[in-house]
Amino acid sequence: MRKIHVIGIGAGDPEQLTLQAVRALRGTDVFFVLDKGEVKADLVRARRDMLDAHVEPGSYRVVEARDPERDRAAGGSAYSPAVGDWRSARADIYERLISEELGEEESGAFLVWGDPALYDSTLGILDEILARGAVAFTYDVVPGISSVSALVARHRTGLNRVAGPVQITTGRRLAEGLPEGVDDVVVMLDAHQAFRRYADQDIDIYWGAYIGTPDEILVSGPLAEAGPRIERIRAEARERKGWIMDTYLLRRNPERG
Amino acid sequence: MRKIHVIGIGAGDPEQLTLQAVRALRGTDVFFVLDKGEVKADLVRARRDMLDAHVEPGSYRVVEARDPERDRAAGGSAYSPAVGDWRSARADIYERLISEELGEEESGAFLVWGDPALYDSTLGILDEILARGAVAFTYDVVPGISSVSALVARHRTGLNRVAGPVQITTGRRLAEGLPEGVDDVVVMLDAHQAFRRYADQDIDIYWGAYIGTPDEILVSGPLAEAGPRIERIRAEARERKGWIMDTYLLRRNPERG
Repeated sequence: MRKIHVIGIGAGDPEQLTLQAVRALRGTDVFFVLDKGEVKADLVRARRDMLDAHVEPGSYRVVEARDPERDRAAGGSAYSPAVGDWRSARADIYERLISEELGEEESGAFLVWGDPALYDSTLGILDEILARGAVAFTYDVVPGISSVSALVARHRTGLNRVAGPVQITTGRRLAEGLPEGVDDVVVMLDAHQAFRRYADQDIDIYWGAYIGTPDEILVSGPLAEAGPRIERIRAEARERKGWIMDTYLLRRNPERG
Repeated sequence: MRKIHVIGIGAGDPEQLTLQAVRALRGTDVFFVLDKGEVKADLVRARRDMLDAHVEPGSYRVVEARDPERDRAAGGSAYSPAVGDWRSARADIYERLISEELGEEESGAFLVWGDPALYDSTLGILDEILARGAVAFTYDVVPGISSVSALVARHRTGLNRVAGPVQITTGRRLAEGLPEGVDDVVVMLDAHQAFRRYADQDIDIYWGAYIGTPDEILVSGPLAEAGPRIERIRAEARERKGWIMDTYLLRRNPERG
């Protein structure tokens, strides 16, 4: 029976690999690497560096494939149809990789930045392929350090306040309003700096980009003051590197607000 | 200048240590271990086993102290006063440990289960000690695999659904109501199985105890069916081992509900 590892490899710092992840890397015959065909080449190279550092050369194969283009123009807040098409296209590719590139008795792996549980489609896609029934395999998941954990560790703050909740959400949802009943909100996948809308509220922001890498940038402070600074720094960094991965925590101050 | 590492050591599986955590362990002169004086002796031993496995014997000291008893009888949903007293008592102990047991040029470490960012008081207590100004030190945070990540990895499911939010909260808050506007809710620190209240709703539960250890128990399914099973299994396990650490994800099914 084919076996697949879905391995969380941390948020950018190669030392965020767990011992369990290193063991899984060493037990893998075929690594599947999806190239987004963008400037994400940096990220593909970082994964190759991890393999070079931890796995014996010649003991594995790397199979690359081109990720399907996501139709971002479809837009709208309920963008499920476009996402659904994209997931199916990706499932087609993964299914082909698993059935054609992985021997019956071999182990394959997908390396996922951060934690496979958070805003990553790999688990859902593997379930979809299994449901189709054309190729059989088992899979397991190696949890990883998420960009959320990495962000707050670098800012040396907690995610929640004493006995309080924390919500993790997307820029798209934040643009629709702050979630109810929760004062600590982590925002991922925000290409439009949705925090700008809340600059008049008593909110602190803890922002980070390229966390754990040599390019790491951290900014924190009251949103009214730090927000414009983050916008400027973010635009410059994105221009310079060609891509950006950033995350932030918004912390509402109910006592003062 | 004294230096402190706050090191996330994962949710129970010793292989969930990151390479960064192993490096921090090896750079530590003094480990501070707080003994809760309960049956948590298992957890103290597990930390000692980690040191034995990764750090050269004789290269470090372990200083043990007794954790202050938390006045749980104070109760109530706004239990901040009792928590405040407990935190101050803990800060007194940590302050004494750092000033008396750690040399001026040495590195100390606190080993935190899971991720130091999530429902752990260490960072807040260190900030309180720094604010008091009696002892000077710097500290850094090594993120860890949280029990939240470990739970869903073992269940091979994501925390969020496509582009959806997830909230992490406590049993105490869940008892007051399901959070608004979010269908995926992770519950920690629930000694009273607050999920029982929602057995009549269309909710799936993914529950786990002692995750990543040889005692691991996983149960999932519709809440109406799996809930009573979890209550029974949890009570038996707690009786058998003398303590339990468990976490769960509630996933509301809005389409079907």
